[in-house]
Amino acid sequence: MTLIIDCHGHYTTAPAAHDEWRKAQIAAWRAGTDAPPYPDISDDDLRASVEANQLRLLGERGADMTIFSPRASVMGHHIGDAAVSQAWTRACNDLIARVVQLYPETFIGVCQLPQSPGVAIADSIAELERCVLEHGFVGCNLNPDPGGGHFTSPPLTDRAWYPFYEKMVELDVPAMVHVSGSCNPGLHATGAFYIAADTIAFMQFLEGDLFADFPTLRFIIPHGGGAVPYHWGRYRGLADMLKKPPLASHVMQNVYFDTCVYHQPGIDLLFEVIDPKNILFGSEMVGAVRGIDPETGQYFDDTKRYVDALGLDDTTRHAVYEGNARRVFPRLDAQLKAAGR
Amino acid sequence: MTLIIDCHGHYTTAPAAHDEWRKAQIAAWRAGTDAPPYPDISDDDLRASVEANQLRLLGERGADMTIFSPRASVMGHHIGDAAVSQAWTRACNDLIARVVQLYPETFIGVCQLPQSPGVAIADSIAELERCVLEHGFVGCNLNPDPGGGHFTSPPLTDRAWYPFYEKMVELDVPAMVHVSGSCNPGLHATGAFYIAADTIAFMQFLEGDLFADFPTLRFIIPHGGGAVPYHWGRYRGLADMLKKPPLASHVMQNVYFDTCVYHQPGIDLLFEVIDPKNILFGSEMVGAVRGIDPETGQYFDDTKRYVDALGLDDTTRHAVYEGNARRVFPRLDAQLKAAGR
Repeated sequence: MTLIIDCHGHYTTAPAAHDEWRKAQIAAWRAGTDAPPYPDISDDDLRASVEANQLRLLGERGADMTIFSPRASVMGHHIGDAAVSQAWTRACNDLIARVVQLYPETFIGVCQLPQSPGVAIADSIAELERCVLEHGFVGCNLNPDPGGGHFTSPPLTDRAWYPFYEKMVELDVPAMVHVSGSCNPGLHATGAFYIAADTIAFMQFLEGDLFADFPTLRFIIPHGGGAVPYHWGRYRGLADMLKKPPLASHVMQNVYFDTCVYHQPGIDLLFEVIDPKNILFGSEMVGAVRGIDPETGQYFDDTKRYVDALGLDDTTRHAVYEGNARRVFPRLDAQLKAAGR
Repeated sequence: MTLIIDCHGHYTTAPAAHDEWRKAQIAAWRAGTDAPPYPDISDDDLRASVEANQLRLLGERGADMTIFSPRASVMGHHIGDAAVSQAWTRACNDLIARVVQLYPETFIGVCQLPQSPGVAIADSIAELERCVLEHGFVGCNLNPDPGGGHFTSPPLTDRAWYPFYEKMVELDVPAMVHVSGSCNPGLHATGAFYIAADTIAFMQFLEGDLFADFPTLRFIIPHGGGAVPYHWGRYRGLADMLKKPPLASHVMQNVYFDTCVYHQPGIDLLFEVIDPKNILFGSEMVGAVRGIDPETGQYFDDTKRYVDALGLDDTTRHAVYEGNARRVFPRLDAQLKAAGR
C-alpha cells in the first residue's frame, strides 16, 4: 500500500484575515509606523480554508498527504526590510504549523525563510531551526532570488550560502528552490519567473561543484525542473564541455524534480529522461493554474492523472509517490514511522 | 525536393583578427581612447573559417542552407556604450555579408542590432535597414535583455519596442528573440540565460496583446522555445486564467520555435505539442554544445537526425525544413525564387 505524498503544496487559500494583515504590515512599513497586531484566526477558519480546497482535492484525486508550505508567490522577500520579512515569515510558518496540528495525518510542514535582499542567508538559520525543532517541519523553501526578478543574488553554489547549507545538513532537511512574486514587470511570477529560476538553479549546480563540499545536501527543483528535462541533451552536453562529471554523479545525487508539469506529454518526457529515483510526485495544488484543461476535461494541475497514466511498475510507482519523498525528507519518514505508517 | 534550411546558425568561427579587434575596441573604450582600425580580413580567411566548420557540417549532415547571423554570445550589448555597440555591430554584420557574398547558395544573412542598455530601440532601425536593403539580409536578432542578465528592459510587449516593430513590419522581416552573453555570475549564457530568456519572452507575448497591434509581426523563439513546449499545459492554463484567447490564436499566429533541442525525447515532445506550422528547423551550429553524445555517438547539435527520426509525412517535413522558413522570412523566399530555387 503506497501513501500518495504530494511534495509541493502551498497554503494559497489562507484565511482573508492573514492576507489583510500582510497588507496592513506593508502599509505600516511604508508609512514608517508599527504593524497592527496579527489577527485572531480561529481553528474553524483554518479548517474551512483547507476543507473546501486542498482536503477536498486530495480526496477527489486520491492523494493522502501534502508537504505544505506558505504561499510562495507572496513570500515577497523583496518587500519591506529584514524585520518585515521576519515578522511575515513567522506568521506564515505559524499558520502552517496550526494547519498541520489540525490535520497531522494529511499535512506536514515546510517553512518559508525570512530572506531579504542584501541580508545574509545565515540570518535565516534561526527560523529554520525554530520550524524544524519546535514545529516539526521537515524542509524549507529557499529563494534563490529574494530581490524578486532581477537575479542579483550570488549563484546557489557561492560560499555566501554555505552557512545555511551547513545547518540544512545538520538538521537533515532538504530545500525546495522556490522564488516568490516578481517585482519585474517583464517577469510574470508563475509563467516566467518560476520556470526561469528553476532552470537557472539547475545550471548553477551544473557549473559549480557544490555537492563535492556537501555530499548529503538535497534540493528539489520544482515545476518539473523548469526547462531542464526538455533540454536534457543540452545539459548533458554542457557538463561535457565544462569538463564536469556526468550529470548522474555530478548533480543528480543531490537534486530532485517534482511532477508539477501540467500536461501528459510533459510528464512523459520527464519520466523518459530523468531517473525516477530523482522524481517526487507534486502538484503545486491549489496553485499556479487552477482551471480545467478543455482538451482533457480535467484540472491542469491534477498531475496524479498524468503519472498514473504512465503505467509505472510497482517499485517505481511507490518510489515516486512515497519512497523518494521519505528518502529526501528523512524527518517526514521518521514522523510517518512514529505514526506506524 | 526539399531544401534543408537551418534557421539558426551563428558565425561562431569568425577569423581571430575579428575577435582580436573586438578585444582592442573594448580595451580602447575602457582606456578612453579610439579603437584601432578594423583589420583587413581576406576572403581566404573567411573561406577557411566556414569551410572547416559550417560548410563541412552542413555537408556531412545533409543540410543545404543556413540563415546566418553574428555570434550571439558576443553581441555583448552590455559592454561599452552605444557607439561601441554600433561599431562592433556594423563590423559583425559586414562580415556576415561577406560570407553570404562568398557562398550565396549556402548562407543568407540575419543581422545583430546595435542595442545598448538604456538606448532606445529606435536607434537600431538604421542598422536593420542598412542590412536588409543594402546587404540583402532577411531578418534580425533582437535582444530582449541588452543589459546582459538582469532582465531590466521593459517586456517585449511594451510600447517602447513599437518603433522597431513598425520597421520590421514595413520591411517584412522577422526577429529571432536572442539574448547575448551574460554579465551575471549566476547566469551561464547558453545553459541558463538563453533558455530563461526564451521562456520569459513567450510569457510576455502571452500576457500582452502585442499581436492585436501588429498582426503580421513574427518572432522566432530559439532553443526550441525555451521551457515552453515542456510546460505547454501550464501556458495553456495561464492563458485561460488571464482571460486570453487560446494560444493558437493569441500567440501562435506570430511566434515560431526552432528545433535547437539536443536530444530525441525533447524533439519528440516539441512535435507532439506544437503545431508543425510553428516549427522551423534549426541547429545553432556551430554553437552552444559542440560535443558528441556518448549515448548516441552523434553530435548533440545534429538536430536533423532527431527531426528525421520523427518520420514526418512529406508535407510536414517540407514545411519544417523549408516551407515555414520561406513563409516566416519572405525575403528569403523572394531571393530563393529569384535564383530559381
